[in-house]
Amino acid sequence: MNTQPSPLSEPSSDTEATAAPPWPEVRPIANPALELMVQHQLSGSHESEHAFGRMETLAIQLAGIQHLDGQGMEGLRFESPQLVVFAADHGIAVEGVSAFPQDATLQRALELLTGKSPVCALASTQGFAVTLVDAGVATHIALPPDAAPAVPLLLRKIGYGTRNMVLAQAMSVAQMRAAIDAGMDVVKHLPGNVIALSNISVGGNSSAAQLLSRLCGVPLADACGRHQAQDEVRAQRKLERLFAAASRHRKATAALDVLACMGGFEIAMICGAMIQAASEHRVVLVDGFVASAAALVARALVPAVADYLVFAHRSAEPGHRLLLIHLQAAPLLDMELRTGQGVGALLAWPLLLSAQRLLDR
Amino acid sequence: MNTQPSPLSEPSSDTEATAAPPWPEVRPIANPALELMVQHQLSGSHESEHAFGRMETLAIQLAGIQHLDGQGMEGLRFESPQLVVFAADHGIAVEGVSAFPQDATLQRALELLTGKSPVCALASTQGFAVTLVDAGVATHIALPPDAAPAVPLLLRKIGYGTRNMVLAQAMSVAQMRAAIDAGMDVVKHLPGNVIALSNISVGGNSSAAQLLSRLCGVPLADACGRHQAQDEVRAQRKLERLFAAASRHRKATAALDVLACMGGFEIAMICGAMIQAASEHRVVLVDGFVASAAALVARALVPAVADYLVFAHRSAEPGHRLLLIHLQAAPLLDMELRTGQGVGALLAWPLLLSAQRLLDR
Repeated sequence: MNTQPSPLSEPSSDTEATAAPPWPEVRPIANPALELMVQHQLSGSHESEHAFGRMETLAIQLAGIQHLDGQGMEGLRFESPQLVVFAADHGIAVEGVSAFPQDATLQRALELLTGKSPVCALASTQGFAVTLVDAGVATHIALPPDAAPAVPLLLRKIGYGTRNMVLAQAMSVAQMRAAIDAGMDVVKHLPGNVIALSNISVGGNSSAAQLLSRLCGVPLADACGRHQAQDEVRAQRKLERLFAAASRHRKATAALDVLACMGGFEIAMICGAMIQAASEHRVVLVDGFVASAAALVARALVPAVADYLVFAHRSAEPGHRLLLIHLQAAPLLDMELRTGQGVGALLAWPLLLSAQRLLDR
Repeated sequence: MNTQPSPLSEPSSDTEATAAPPWPEVRPIANPALELMVQHQLSGSHESEHAFGRMETLAIQLAGIQHLDGQGMEGLRFESPQLVVFAADHGIAVEGVSAFPQDATLQRALELLTGKSPVCALASTQGFAVTLVDAGVATHIALPPDAAPAVPLLLRKIGYGTRNMVLAQAMSVAQMRAAIDAGMDVVKHLPGNVIALSNISVGGNSSAAQLLSRLCGVPLADACGRHQAQDEVRAQRKLERLFAAASRHRKATAALDVLACMGGFEIAMICGAMIQAASEHRVVLVDGFVASAAALVARALVPAVADYLVFAHRSAEPGHRLLLIHLQAAPLLDMELRTGQGVGALLAWPLLLSAQRLLDR
């Protein structure tokens, strides 16, 4: 795997990253009148107050996204829902921080591309269009000559994997900017008003843990956590390498600096996708730990983005629980998934349809 | 509201209840070969072990129910799913234990019967047939002359509400037996291989709390719990009345005795329905606190019933959390619902469809 920087992307200094680009405007959602209408519509006359609990919270959020200016309650309309999976490699994978070889990113991307991924089965049932984005897989994604792609592949490769953050900045500032822009651009060219964002990226959880630790002040050992079933020696080694990286990039504290130093191409793209989608008033369904880490950055850049994010599930990754707490996000499901690719987002999707149905009756 | 016993249902002694009727045979589910096949089918070659977390657990349970003797893995087939809502009144409602007047049972039953209940909207979208059973509402359920029923009503009224358990046994043994039999009979005459069981019953949570407390040894104050928003005076009064009832029936310890003394018609019917459905290898989707309390009794009578129960959600009722822990049940959703009628069951249903889809691909 080539984890060297491309000639176009020499590392820049941390300080450059903090110059704010003009983010698209994202309108915060707060509509007390609409909130009351939704509560009334759901509870009817014979029910307890807040009878629908977190379904009420969800319905209020969705109504807020779709009827920002609405005086009346017109129900919800979901159009052409999209699942976008960003695939990328992380230089730190060479340190053995993941249970998988780096090549697993490519293999999973190919599985998705040929429609054999479990998420493809869920997407076809639930009417989601799937798009795979090559954000920076360490090799060229090439289908076998006899295979037809079942899913469109967008070539947005920023590099052949990030650099190893133990040794250098993961991305140059230029790469990071290009990745955020690419994420925004991908969303701009997709139809619909619902977008689920996910990833395929061996090593991505290490980046997510670093972002959580640095941006929320969570001890790194807690942010990367340990699965019960995890190999003890690998867990220790992972933590040690993450400490080394954190120490190297100890001066990075602003969101974009942290992203450039210890993030990943897919995280930067998801961050851009979230900002763009929110600016277009789309419902953003956030999948696992990595997408949630991107939300941390997006929220730091454009706080109102948070109003558009629906957190689909809490994964088995221990840091995900902490990250969701810091985002003050109550995920819809808690299925202890250890798989990405949008599986959790599509499992949660019917709850949004049920919210629509309850408001619509 | 008439909470007096009908002339046909004089209270009997507690001891009668313990004579075991011949329950239908329920085969326990344990098929390690099938379990391995499901795990293999879900995880594929590029995923972590148990990548699908609790979806894997669900898929294994569903496959076990449908392929008890299966050597191969043939996927899941769901046919004619049914939602059965048992409506009944509780004599203890006159003590002011509920936030609702007893009449709310009738009003909600009428709302369901005329298709105006939120659960009807969900059921129509998700292809569930709904049946309302009058298990013992305190009045006659009569539609206004110009209204057409949207949902079939089965008349299985055991009495006009149970007796007030503070003053007497809630049901005679004969009534309890009749209610269990009616629950079994209702299931026998419904098609399909999936059945969701729920209730409409003001005061039902008080019965459920008593069953939880007595059958699991949970302190009554914990079993009935308190909502944060609940009226402090009513909460104290409720607990005091429940203590009085528990003291009167302190000799009842066997499941059927506890059911007769402090249960409800709807709980007894749901208990019978669970046993019958499990004996027919149906998937049983368990709704809220009251249906879960019925599961406690059903499991005590026929332990293998537990293998067929899928707990749809954890409600906002504090006792429900404890009850699920005692049943070692991990509910699919945790939406903090304060509504019964099967809403939680139907919100969870798409997860079963997703499990089917994941096994089917």
